[in-house]
Amino acid sequence: MKKNALWLLLVLMLPAIAYGRKPEKKVTVSSGRKEEDLVTGLPGQPPVNFRHYAGYVDLGPRQKQKALFYWFFEAQHNSSGRPLVLWLNGGPGCSSVAYGAAQELGPFLVRTNGGNLTFNDFSWNKEANMLFLEAPVGVGFSYTNNSVDLGKLGDQVTSEDSLTFLINWFMKFPEFRSNEFYLTGESYAGHYVPQLAEVIYDRNKKVPRDSRINLKGFMIGNAAINEETDMTGLVDYAWSHAIVSDELHSNLHSTCRLEEEQTSNKTIQCIENIKAFSEAYNDIDIYSIYTPVCLSSDSSSSSPRRPKLVVSPSLFTYHDMWDKFPAAGYDPCTEAYTENYFNRKDVQVALHANVTNLPYPYTPCSGVIRRWSEAPSTVLPTIQKLLTGGLRIWIYSGDTDGRVPVTSTRYSIKKMGPKVMLPWRSWFHESQVGGWVETYAGGLTFATVRGAGHQVPVFAPAQSLTLFSHFLSSTPLPSKRF
Amino acid sequence: MKKNALWLLLVLMLPAIAYGRKPEKKVTVSSGRKEEDLVTGLPGQPPVNFRHYAGYVDLGPRQKQKALFYWFFEAQHNSSGRPLVLWLNGGPGCSSVAYGAAQELGPFLVRTNGGNLTFNDFSWNKEANMLFLEAPVGVGFSYTNNSVDLGKLGDQVTSEDSLTFLINWFMKFPEFRSNEFYLTGESYAGHYVPQLAEVIYDRNKKVPRDSRINLKGFMIGNAAINEETDMTGLVDYAWSHAIVSDELHSNLHSTCRLEEEQTSNKTIQCIENIKAFSEAYNDIDIYSIYTPVCLSSDSSSSSPRRPKLVVSPSLFTYHDMWDKFPAAGYDPCTEAYTENYFNRKDVQVALHANVTNLPYPYTPCSGVIRRWSEAPSTVLPTIQKLLTGGLRIWIYSGDTDGRVPVTSTRYSIKKMGPKVMLPWRSWFHESQVGGWVETYAGGLTFATVRGAGHQVPVFAPAQSLTLFSHFLSSTPLPSKRF
Repeated sequence: MKKNALWLLLVLMLPAIAYGRKPEKKVTVSSGRKEEDLVTGLPGQPPVNFRHYAGYVDLGPRQKQKALFYWFFEAQHNSSGRPLVLWLNGGPGCSSVAYGAAQELGPFLVRTNGGNLTFNDFSWNKEANMLFLEAPVGVGFSYTNNSVDLGKLGDQVTSEDSLTFLINWFMKFPEFRSNEFYLTGESYAGHYVPQLAEVIYDRNKKVPRDSRINLKGFMIGNAAINEETDMTGLVDYAWSHAIVSDELHSNLHSTCRLEEEQTSNKTIQCIENIKAFSEAYNDIDIYSIYTPVCLSSDSSSSSPRRPKLVVSPSLFTYHDMWDKFPAAGYDPCTEAYTENYFNRKDVQVALHANVTNLPYPYTPCSGVIRRWSEAPSTVLPTIQKLLTGGLRIWIYSGDTDGRVPVTSTRYSIKKMGPKVMLPWRSWFHESQVGGWVETYAGGLTFATVRGAGHQVPVFAPAQSLTLFSHFLSSTPLPSKRF
Repeated sequence: MKKNALWLLLVLMLPAIAYGRKPEKKVTVSSGRKEEDLVTGLPGQPPVNFRHYAGYVDLGPRQKQKALFYWFFEAQHNSSGRPLVLWLNGGPGCSSVAYGAAQELGPFLVRTNGGNLTFNDFSWNKEANMLFLEAPVGVGFSYTNNSVDLGKLGDQVTSEDSLTFLINWFMKFPEFRSNEFYLTGESYAGHYVPQLAEVIYDRNKKVPRDSRINLKGFMIGNAAINEETDMTGLVDYAWSHAIVSDELHSNLHSTCRLEEEQTSNKTIQCIENIKAFSEAYNDIDIYSIYTPVCLSSDSSSSSPRRPKLVVSPSLFTYHDMWDKFPAAGYDPCTEAYTENYFNRKDVQVALHANVTNLPYPYTPCSGVIRRWSEAPSTVLPTIQKLLTGGLRIWIYSGDTDGRVPVTSTRYSIKKMGPKVMLPWRSWFHESQVGGWVETYAGGLTFATVRGAGHQVPVFAPAQSLTLFSHFLSSTPLPSKRF
């Protein structure tokens, strides 16, 4: 069953509504030569010997009013021989620049509230050319000159616009056209990544060989992929990790019939139990259940914190309590630091960002996307189709995330019924267990990352680089301690 | 159903067997005046302004060949007005001195392989007079002059000998006779503590008022209390924490019929699955699933590491793989440091320990106890009886322990069917969630400690002191962040 009218219930969004009423500003930025996008003099940046580019790619000719913002890091060594990898954060509405690039796996991390960037020893651009995209319009610095577009967002628009972005980006960077290409992402990118892979895959069949995108596979982490199992896993995880009572766990199963296909007709009892469930996470970080929450008064930002993943499971989107969840990382105040950093005018100038002078501040998760009008309840058929089509697909899970927990992903993979090729086993990062891994017939691998929260590279940077490296080379994760 | 002949299958115990064959050495140590037990000049000890005592209490007149070793710390302030608290570690066979006192909650922690002791800012003797007992004979420095005793150990002997110890200890320290008295402990002390409480409770009814022990309650952590639910929780925890495969989890339930009362007749399939389950924990620390294991070559000790809890659930005691589990703490090599420390002759002299020159080295878990001939499959009826008898009972659980996990304890408490008085809620330590707590009718409280392994005070020292303090004062754990 397809889901329509899944609303983002971001109740504190009056500023966004106000922006929507502003008169249209017709500003268009050319998708010029890549040299114009070269980043030099980024405030606080440590010196490096690789190039990075940032700027806009507009979606013309048909949708010239839209432009998507990217930040691209060439690989640290042998850039031309390395794969090209797109990273997408979720939300919907959250920025791959503020999260993926600046907090998780990029070379420059915003780790303090000062202006300095920290060099990340475990940046994924050690292994690949890394492209971070803010999609769809309304996310981060990506924009539209027609605010009507902000009311028509959903999974399909996102994948179509992201494809157009990619086609146009390759016109700027034609030298990467023949490199192996991979998609990666986390959280609600469990929708974006398979969906974008599918439109690339389908397009590749229709266009001449030299127009094809050399897509080889994708990797998604703590990914929302199947609403019913995601929901069941969410509730079971909270119980097995001692966050909710026996009674609430049992009541959720009995009143919400979690294992059944979801409908929008929920009983009052179910809704009450969901409310209680959400409140059970009020006091801790659902994205990393064993780390502290940010309590620093320095971290308060102008806009209220919103969750990184709000749309799925849809049961929860009937209620407005998800936006009460603290959104946190390893240093739980990091998110506020990135918000401060990317709102700096000198930073924006250096990144060629915000050239249209957006009438709202930069926020890690969008403050202007008010609804999400289209999303399927499952992407498992898409994943199945692409596995059959020969793509390499790795699914990973930081096992201390409560939001899209490892139980959800296990239920979802089980639902696909893949044949086990190499059974469940430990994998090692250097001398300690990095997590567990199971390999299935047809190119599917599932790997956990031990002790890592929702944003895996934040909590297990070295392990995540090992995982990424083995995904790219399609080699088994290390099975021995030494 | 009572369990008989539960064997400790410590297969690498040839030295112990050899010791068993040595000719008897008849040495008796007097249970003299407490002044003789005052500890002065303990190597590496930081200066403190409270007294501590260590030494032997023999179990005469009837069992004068046996003597149990204790280490007693007066409270840091107002010793006479504070409660007296006994701490017991589990095993069976593990030392309350090497674990509880020196690694967990005592004032002097062995935290390095050098000779220095680290002062513990969160020592439980901030709140109470803390008495650490090594029981039964064969554990730590406690000994018997008749090695036949070592073949007749079990729960009942332990509780009877511990009671005799206490009665005699109060003769040494009569000034603590009227203080409130509590029992505490972890792991297999889930048996020892309720059983000792019961013999004290029963005795109090028979003896004159001035001979009674002023027992008010007890607190047990990550405690083995009911074999069937402990076993089910163990297996379910390993699945929900992504340590074992769907297949193995499902097979364990189907072939071992975990939810049923255990019998000793297990199918070959069940035994095979148990073996695979045990092996799944080979690579990580089952007692703290997210921390590293000790790999330092400095930490190798003369005897192989044995688990801290070997006897229960009994299913596993049919197999010898449990002794392959790494036994670890926060600094996973700490256990080896304590072994080294307590084997030092100058330390033994300072503690008035090993006065009989034991023919075997000191080990944190006993190397000379070869069998455990008697243990009930459940202590729930004992707990129920003592609740009814008016004792205050708190059960706590560090929620990242895989050995007696929080799922086991939840299943066990549910089995008792207590009436919820104050429902499941977060409790706070200063500004962060310390765990969750539920209060039941009749004096029973269950509290979890977030992110703590099996030896809770090692992983969450400040939180554990908060927990202990509220247990002693019988006040609700803090329900607010500030």
